[in-house]
Amino acid sequence: MTYCVAVKLNAGLVFLSDSRTNAGLDQISTFRKMIVYEKPGERFMCLLSAGNLSISQSVREILQVEQVKDVDGGEPITIWNAKSMFDAARVLGSAVRHVYERDGESLKRAGVEFNVSMIFGGQIQGEGMRLFQVYSAGNFIEATAETPFFQIGESKYGKPVLDRVITPDTPLNEAAKCVLVSMDSTLKSNLSVGLPLDLAVYEVDQLQSDKITCIDDNNPYFRMVHNTWGQKLREVFDSIEHPTWDGAHTEVPLLCSGPRNQPLKKIGNAKEKLI
Amino acid sequence: MTYCVAVKLNAGLVFLSDSRTNAGLDQISTFRKMIVYEKPGERFMCLLSAGNLSISQSVREILQVEQVKDVDGGEPITIWNAKSMFDAARVLGSAVRHVYERDGESLKRAGVEFNVSMIFGGQIQGEGMRLFQVYSAGNFIEATAETPFFQIGESKYGKPVLDRVITPDTPLNEAAKCVLVSMDSTLKSNLSVGLPLDLAVYEVDQLQSDKITCIDDNNPYFRMVHNTWGQKLREVFDSIEHPTWDGAHTEVPLLCSGPRNQPLKKIGNAKEKLI
Repeated sequence: MTYCVAVKLNAGLVFLSDSRTNAGLDQISTFRKMIVYEKPGERFMCLLSAGNLSISQSVREILQVEQVKDVDGGEPITIWNAKSMFDAARVLGSAVRHVYERDGESLKRAGVEFNVSMIFGGQIQGEGMRLFQVYSAGNFIEATAETPFFQIGESKYGKPVLDRVITPDTPLNEAAKCVLVSMDSTLKSNLSVGLPLDLAVYEVDQLQSDKITCIDDNNPYFRMVHNTWGQKLREVFDSIEHPTWDGAHTEVPLLCSGPRNQPLKKIGNAKEKLI
Repeated sequence: MTYCVAVKLNAGLVFLSDSRTNAGLDQISTFRKMIVYEKPGERFMCLLSAGNLSISQSVREILQVEQVKDVDGGEPITIWNAKSMFDAARVLGSAVRHVYERDGESLKRAGVEFNVSMIFGGQIQGEGMRLFQVYSAGNFIEATAETPFFQIGESKYGKPVLDRVITPDTPLNEAAKCVLVSMDSTLKSNLSVGLPLDLAVYEVDQLQSDKITCIDDNNPYFRMVHNTWGQKLREVFDSIEHPTWDGAHTEVPLLCSGPRNQPLKKIGNAKEKLI
């Protein structure tokens, strides 16, 4: 399994990926799932991948040389000359389809689903930042102000904190902290997601980034987040008052041992208190 | 979808279920997923169900009259005369198998999986409390001190807080609060889980419970939990310091636009700070 998340903010982009790959529970390895394509001052692009590792590795390999036709009859478009992130995402989609053409049938015969999903975002000179989620069919969707983040892989454990915190106005460092908390919750609840993490933070209009780092067990900031979040969450939990019962009920099917098949419904009210 | 959770503590048992059922996204209804079987002073049992509604409703119907053979040749065992929760769980498993015998083939022909999962717990006079999770095949597992809670349905969003809070020593009211927080996170992130909720709290050795209630939108305690948890979580998040960057990096594959296919790896260190 995998957990990757990327956020598009007014202030920039944040990407985070774990590095655990497993084929069954007894074969666990470490593979990095983030790759950055950068031509400083001209383009910055970051790709996160989940799904079948042989597919995503092939896509990454092919992406370097993949071309799509320019509709205006110009030079074929690659990720290195694309004039927009939309075109770059088309190139990525095309790379996915090439891998499908090569491997799809054989995988199907072996009973293996053609399963890959990717997050691809960045900025190309002359255009705003853009963030895409790319599917197994090579099609893709784009993040908007209403939905400013994408997750791939084991996304559920880490979604609540993103839902609560992330808006387009969130500052970059706050979003970096948020994705790390999101990852921390996922690490705690799912063994198939593991350290080290790769984190990339891109500031709008910089067209390059030096805020790219690998976070392992010994990283003091991540350890602090991990410990503080767990402890303070507990404090918050303790600070909320316990429920109290005042004997009031509402309707619930309660079967007593009297005549069978006759649900006895106790009716009451719960005006003032929950319980 | 559904979310149900039950916890076994030294102090008692806590059960919580939502009530949303959907067949596709355009057919959403409300069905209660909790049912309590009680003979005050002799037995208290609570059943939560998830999965295909036609199956779980049939199981609940059949369970009232289901019997399994007593190995000692005595009177057939029902949930109302079982001497142990283990035997009562066997009766439930048998009811699941009867529904499978009746409906399994036809469902398969229609391309519908025989999908049902249940949580069943309680106490029968002369025995300690027990909590089981029952699967589609009618087999079941029992909660232990190491794994004191079971979840069925949409379990992931609400698992982190359970992982952090619940131990066998957790007091009953604290566990009730915890499952409500767990449900709140699930409601926030998954549309297919919805109010009203059914909550049942059973105190050890009481062999009955009057702490059974239905919680809707207007319930003041649940509204308080919902608002306070969201707000305080945000305060905790804000109180954790943001990451700072000191220009140190670790290894990340960074592809520049030079000769293609040559990943440029920037090596650095991250001794003092994350980033």
